[in-house]
Amino acid sequence: MTYCVGMMLEKGLVLMSDTRTNSGVDNISVFRKMHHWSVPGERIITLMTAGNLATTQSVISLLEERTKAPEDREPSILRAPTMFQVATMVGNLLAETIRKRQESNDHMSGGPKFTASIILAGQIAGMEPRLFLIYPEGNFIEASVDTPFFQIGETKYGRPIIIRAYNRNMSFEEGVKLLMVSMDSTLAANLSVGMPLDLLVIERDRFEPLHERRIHASDKFFQDISTGWSEALRNAFQSLPSYNLDEIDDPEA
Amino acid sequence: MTYCVGMMLEKGLVLMSDTRTNSGVDNISVFRKMHHWSVPGERIITLMTAGNLATTQSVISLLEERTKAPEDREPSILRAPTMFQVATMVGNLLAETIRKRQESNDHMSGGPKFTASIILAGQIAGMEPRLFLIYPEGNFIEASVDTPFFQIGETKYGRPIIIRAYNRNMSFEEGVKLLMVSMDSTLAANLSVGMPLDLLVIERDRFEPLHERRIHASDKFFQDISTGWSEALRNAFQSLPSYNLDEIDDPEA
Repeated sequence: MTYCVGMMLEKGLVLMSDTRTNSGVDNISVFRKMHHWSVPGERIITLMTAGNLATTQSVISLLEERTKAPEDREPSILRAPTMFQVATMVGNLLAETIRKRQESNDHMSGGPKFTASIILAGQIAGMEPRLFLIYPEGNFIEASVDTPFFQIGETKYGRPIIIRAYNRNMSFEEGVKLLMVSMDSTLAANLSVGMPLDLLVIERDRFEPLHERRIHASDKFFQDISTGWSEALRNAFQSLPSYNLDEIDDPEA
Repeated sequence: MTYCVGMMLEKGLVLMSDTRTNSGVDNISVFRKMHHWSVPGERIITLMTAGNLATTQSVISLLEERTKAPEDREPSILRAPTMFQVATMVGNLLAETIRKRQESNDHMSGGPKFTASIILAGQIAGMEPRLFLIYPEGNFIEASVDTPFFQIGETKYGRPIIIRAYNRNMSFEEGVKLLMVSMDSTLAANLSVGMPLDLLVIERDRFEPLHERRIHASDKFFQDISTGWSEALRNAFQSLPSYNLDEIDDPEA
């Protein structure tokens, strides 16, 4: 599994991904799931990937035009005029990659699925920062004021706190903290999501990372968040009123 | 979907279930998913069910021997000598019910699945209270000190708070509050889990419900928990230290 989450704030974008990949539970590895490209002063584009690793690595390699000699590479996502067109490109490439692999394995009924999904985030000069969720079928949706964040992979454990604590006007510092709490709840519940984490903060109109960091299990701040959150949750729970068993029992009231 | 949760405390058992059943999102109904039987002074047995409604209703009806005239009914779960034997009976009946339905539909490839799972809780005089999770295949596992609660249906959203706030020595009042918070997180995230809720508290060595209640959406206490929990979560989040973007960026530190 995987957990990646991208969140749109007034100030920009905050993105976080785990790095665990697994084939069963006895074969786990660390792979980067967050990739970014930037043209200083002009654009920054980030992808986070979930799903079949061969599929997502293939998509990233094709986007970077690694089939060409390094001096001939001119990735088209760095030339697309809008983020919408970047999303369309990535979506088509993803769907095509999955389709090809699937076709050549159609004789293996019940065989592996090569599905994957992608969060695309970024900004091109003169336009707003944008956040997209791209499906294995190649189509995509865009974040809005009503739905300002996207998750892929193991999305459920980390969702309630984002829904409750998100605020479009929060600072980047608060945004990072929120994604750490969301990630911590997921790490605590699903073994197939694992440290280290990749963190990227994209400030509006900056076109290069404001802050980028790999967060290891030994990270002091993350440990403080993790233990602090357990404690804070227990205190939050204690702060609620107690149920009274002696109220009138009226099963159909 | 469904959310049912059963929790073992030192004092006894606390059980909660929602009541929503759905076929798609445009056909929802209210059905009881919690059923209990007791022989005063001798035993109390509770089942909570998740999955295909026709399957679970059939299992309940067969357990109650509704195929017989009311005066001839003598449900064998009320005569089984141990909770383990009750679990075996319920498991066999569940697996058999699913198998029969599945067989008669095997010509419908890709047709509906009739799977279901059950939480069994109760106590028989002279023995400890017991809590089981019964799988569609008919086998089952029993709760222990290490894993003192079971969930069925939409289990993920409501799990983190139980893991963090559970304490075997908590009071029934705290236990009910904990399940309400867990249920509230689930209700907030999954439309196919819905009010009203059924609540049952089984005190050790009492052999009849200590407290039984249907909790409607208008329930004042549940509303207080629901709004209070949102607020408490936000406060808990605020209480954590803030991330510092200006720390040294060392991606591979």
